[in-house]
Order: sequence, then structure tokens, then C-alpha cells
Amino acid sequence: MARAGEEALIARYFAPLSGPGAEGLRDDAASLTPTPGHDLVVTTDAVVAGVHYFPEDPPGSIAVKALGVNLSDLAAKGASPRGFLLTLALPDDWTEAWLAAFAEGLGTASRAHGCPLLGGDTVRSGGPALIGVTAFGEVPAGAMLRRQAARAGDRLCVSGSIGDAALGLALRLAPDPALDVSHRDALLDRYLHPRPRLALVPALRRHARAAMDVSDGLAGDLRKMLAGTGLTARIDVPSVPLSPAAEAAIAGDPSRLATALTGGDDYEILCAVSPDDLSAFLAEARMAGVPAAAIGTVEAGDGAPLFLDTAGRAMDFARTSFSHF
Amino acid sequence: MARAGEEALIARYFAPLSGPGAEGLRDDAASLTPTPGHDLVVTTDAVVAGVHYFPEDPPGSIAVKALGVNLSDLAAKGASPRGFLLTLALPDDWTEAWLAAFAEGLGTASRAHGCPLLGGDTVRSGGPALIGVTAFGEVPAGAMLRRQAARAGDRLCVSGSIGDAALGLALRLAPDPALDVSHRDALLDRYLHPRPRLALVPALRRHARAAMDVSDGLAGDLRKMLAGTGLTARIDVPSVPLSPAAEAAIAGDPSRLATALTGGDDYEILCAVSPDDLSAFLAEARMAGVPAAAIGTVEAGDGAPLFLDTAGRAMDFARTSFSHF
Repeated sequence: MARAGEEALIARYFAPLSGPGAEGLRDDAASLTPTPGHDLVVTTDAVVAGVHYFPEDPPGSIAVKALGVNLSDLAAKGASPRGFLLTLALPDDWTEAWLAAFAEGLGTASRAHGCPLLGGDTVRSGGPALIGVTAFGEVPAGAMLRRQAARAGDRLCVSGSIGDAALGLALRLAPDPALDVSHRDALLDRYLHPRPRLALVPALRRHARAAMDVSDGLAGDLRKMLAGTGLTARIDVPSVPLSPAAEAAIAGDPSRLATALTGGDDYEILCAVSPDDLSAFLAEARMAGVPAAAIGTVEAGDGAPLFLDTAGRAMDFARTSFSHF
Repeated sequence: MARAGEEALIARYFAPLSGPGAEGLRDDAASLTPTPGHDLVVTTDAVVAGVHYFPEDPPGSIAVKALGVNLSDLAAKGASPRGFLLTLALPDDWTEAWLAAFAEGLGTASRAHGCPLLGGDTVRSGGPALIGVTAFGEVPAGAMLRRQAARAGDRLCVSGSIGDAALGLALRLAPDPALDVSHRDALLDRYLHPRPRLALVPALRRHARAAMDVSDGLAGDLRKMLAGTGLTARIDVPSVPLSPAAEAAIAGDPSRLATALTGGDDYEILCAVSPDDLSAFLAEARMAGVPAAAIGTVEAGDGAPLFLDTAGRAMDFARTSFSHF
């Protein structure tokens, strides 16, 4: 079947998503100017079929994930989205129906987050599909939140709930008929559709000392936040927020708690907040519709962060994080 | 054989290439602020093994190409480089030796063009390698050069020489023992190592009305410059600058002239210049070490641009441009 060429595809499916400075996607570059007094924040993440998502996932969901994982990085840096570039590397058997559904999902996510398409590149991948996004955001000058800026005594907080996506992935690989269907669907949905916590940006800017998004598992990402800083942490595992679906899954198989704490794809925010700011941060997060919870404390020390269970014993993880590489 | 994990690789090979705002590549994002009174220009292009380059090409050359094709877009927009993000999607059989050589070539190109690494993402490709670059440049506010801003009567100019890379690729696919070795090597080198024409940026900013880089073949790219604008062009083919190596190759087989005019990978600049600015543009280009040549004129009309040969006859190309997609 004849498929349209690159220019026709761009005009048909992607030009409608483009924003100011994108020249209608008819140029080789876009211009972008931060609001006066602001810095641009740039980040890039790619997702690959069979590595980061299932090739049979709905194309619109793949688009939501490709953009969402990047917007999650912007949120963690305290940045408001300004736009994105798309690299679409397609397998030889791509279809226009797939592309149309992908563009529709991308457009919905782009509009929902106020983050227009500024340009991109379409290539043959010679293998599985790869979708690369470079996202641009802005922060007041000098205010980009750093990953490694926590201090001893800071409280550690996470947004939303932890472990849903990792449990969703596990259930997709090994279905569990004992789990309630609504819980299963909630967990599967969290794996498919990251929710970048952009609504938390104002509270993060005001109160967070350090922040990152949780993408490779809470335990491993916390380790990255503190690595080489002379700091460690104690996490009170019963304080880690779990969704009702995750609680049900863990009740059915307690070994899933470790999956929840070390699996990837949460796309929640992990941040360090001064104790003086904690109650204001939690109140503003709740007000913004993204509940956050204090889960532990930063301490001086070089060891790996401790995850203490209900009995106060340190949990021993087989692995602390998920690597897509 | 054990290979280092993602974080160790980044610290070893890529952190030394990082610039201000990159946080030593230990964060999920970088900050970037245009010089006051300037706009940021953003562009992204990916190269794929077996599609845009030969998998057996030297890794350092692949890096030079991946960065170079993006810097060529910046040059065509009149932008000075500020930094870049790297997406490295590696096949399952990558080796650390390959990566070390890739990073070395990337570092040399990055330093040569004053364009530091700001961040990136490393993933498993599940197929051939893909190297994606997003490049950032800056222009004085509002001054990004557009592709489609030519006017009737403007003179069309190209930098350097046209067709070398396409002829180099053709010779690589079908060696020609009759061609002098030094000419062959010159053409092969032009295919392997794009030369982004950043030295031309000051002259372009002063004199070009419209500009793009020639990446998919001069004939097809000129068509893109004029498509939908109500303009066409006449190109005087004998005025199109050819290198001595390209001239020798074409002398050996005149059909190669069409390859030179329609093949891809030139990474030269095509621009439209007002007749009043032409002599100053050409003089400044020469002074900047990047000779340019006037090759034709923009005219009102809707037809495809005409390429007129020595006898003034319009050339008939089987295809006008090269598509990697």
C-alpha cells in the first residue's frame, strides 16, 4: 500500500500540533525565547518498542508516554513546559493508521500540558520503533531544581503513589486472576500513561531544596539523589504512599512491596524539603491536586539509604533500580 | 565480557564533554539561557546505522556526522552553537571500545565547534544504533533565517562545493578503479565528515534573505525552499561549484552530474541574497574561508526550479532528492 512521504506526513499529522516559533514545521529549526528573567531547561528521553513499552500498546498511549516521561523531568526541575522536538524512528512495517493514532494521542497530551510541537525528525529505524523527545521548559533565572542539593535533616517527600506502574508491568507479564479487575486496570493504566506532575511545580519552586523524578525505581533513584554527596537517608516504608490498587496487589503477594519500591516508571516527584517548609509544601501540594507524603529523612553518611519496614528492619533489595539500558 | 552500566559510561566518556548548565551530566535536565537580546534556535536530527551511515564506519566519524548534520542546520539558520543533547540508542552488541572511539570523535567535534554536551539519554535500541542530537544555537532576537523567505529577483548561492558526498557514497557502493585515488579519498571523506559551515554565519546574518542547508540533494532542497511560495528558480548548472574530485568523477562518467545535483549529504548552505548584497556576501564568505558561488536566480512562478545545462537546456532528473525515510 502506498504510504505518504515524510513531508506529507508532517503536514497532515504533525503541523496541527505545532506552536509559535515552529514555522509550521516547514523549516529545519525552530526559535524559542525564554520569558525575560527565565532560564530554559532542556531534557531528552527516548522510548523504544520492546524496551520501554510493548509494541502492541495503543499508539496514542505510546505517544502519551514518550512526551510524559520528558514532562516529568521538567516538573522535577521546577520548570513550566514551553515546547518539544520529536524524533520518530519508524520500523519498516509502520502504517499510516498507527501514525494517525500516535499523532492524535500526542496532540491531546501536548494540548493538555500546554507544550506545543516545535520540530523534529522522521527516520527509518531499521529495527523497532524509537520515539525520542526533547522537551523545553523554563524556570525563573537560576532556579532550576537540582538533583543533588539535599542537606542533612531535610525531609524526603514523594508525590502521588509509588509502585503502581511497576506492579502494572509485572501483572502484564504474569496476570494474577486473584486480583480485583478494577485494581488490575488501575495498575495497568499507570504503566501505560505516566502523569507528569506539572501541577506540583509552584510548590516545588517554593519549597523543594532538591528534586528528581522517580523513573527507575524509588530505591535506586534516591541513591542517585544522594550519591557522592556524603549524605544518606532513612525511609519509613509504611509512610511510602501506595494506591488502593497497589495495596491490594501487595496484600495478595507481599513480595510485591519490593517491586513497588524498586520497579520503574513511577514518574512521581522525589524531593528534599527543609523541615521548616514541610507542612507548607504538603498543604500546597494537596491544594494543587497532587498529594505528597513525607517518607523519610536525609542524614549525613555514606551508606546506601535504608528502607525500614514496619518492624524497623532494613529491607534488603535484590536490586534497587530498573535499568532500560 | 562485563560492560559498564549507564552511569559509569556517562561519567567516563561523556561528562568530560559537558559544558556549563549540564550539571556534570548528573541531573535529568540542563539549564540554558540565551545571551540577552537573543533567541534560542533548536533543531534535531538522528542518524541510523545502515540508513545514514555504514555500521562499519569509524565510530569517531559517526559522531562527527551526528553532531555535524545538526550544526549544519544551525549554520543555515544564522545561529551560533550553544550546546547539544545526545540520544544514544545502542545495539545489543555494542562494545566499550566502540563507545570510547565514538566519544573521542564527539569530543573533538564538540570542542572544534564550541558546542558542549548538555545532557542526553542512553537506551537499548533493539536493532541498529541510532544517534540523535538536539542542537541549540542562538541568533539576535527575531533574526533566525527562514527557509521560505526568498523574493523574486534574489540570487541563489551555495557554499563550498556540491555533490562530493553523494559521489563519495556512490563510489563506496560501486568502486571505480579508473578514478584517481586522491579524488576518491576526497569524495569518501566528504561523505563521512560533514563540515558544518558555521564560519559563514556572520555573512549569512548580514546578507541572506532565506537559507537552508543542503542535506537531501540540491535540486530537491531548492524545491523545498520555494514550495508553496509562488516562486521558482533558474539554476545555471555550469555555475554550481564542483570540487576537483567531483569534476574528475563526472569527467569519467557524465551521468554523475545528476547524482551530484540530487544526491544527499552535502551539508552546504543554500541561500537567497538580494542582488544588491551579492558581491558583499561573496566577498565576506571568501574572507571567512567558506567560498560561496551564485548559481541562479529566484523568479515568480509555480513550476519546479529549472536546472539549465551548458547548452541552456533544462535537465530532467529521475528524482530530485534523497530521502532517508
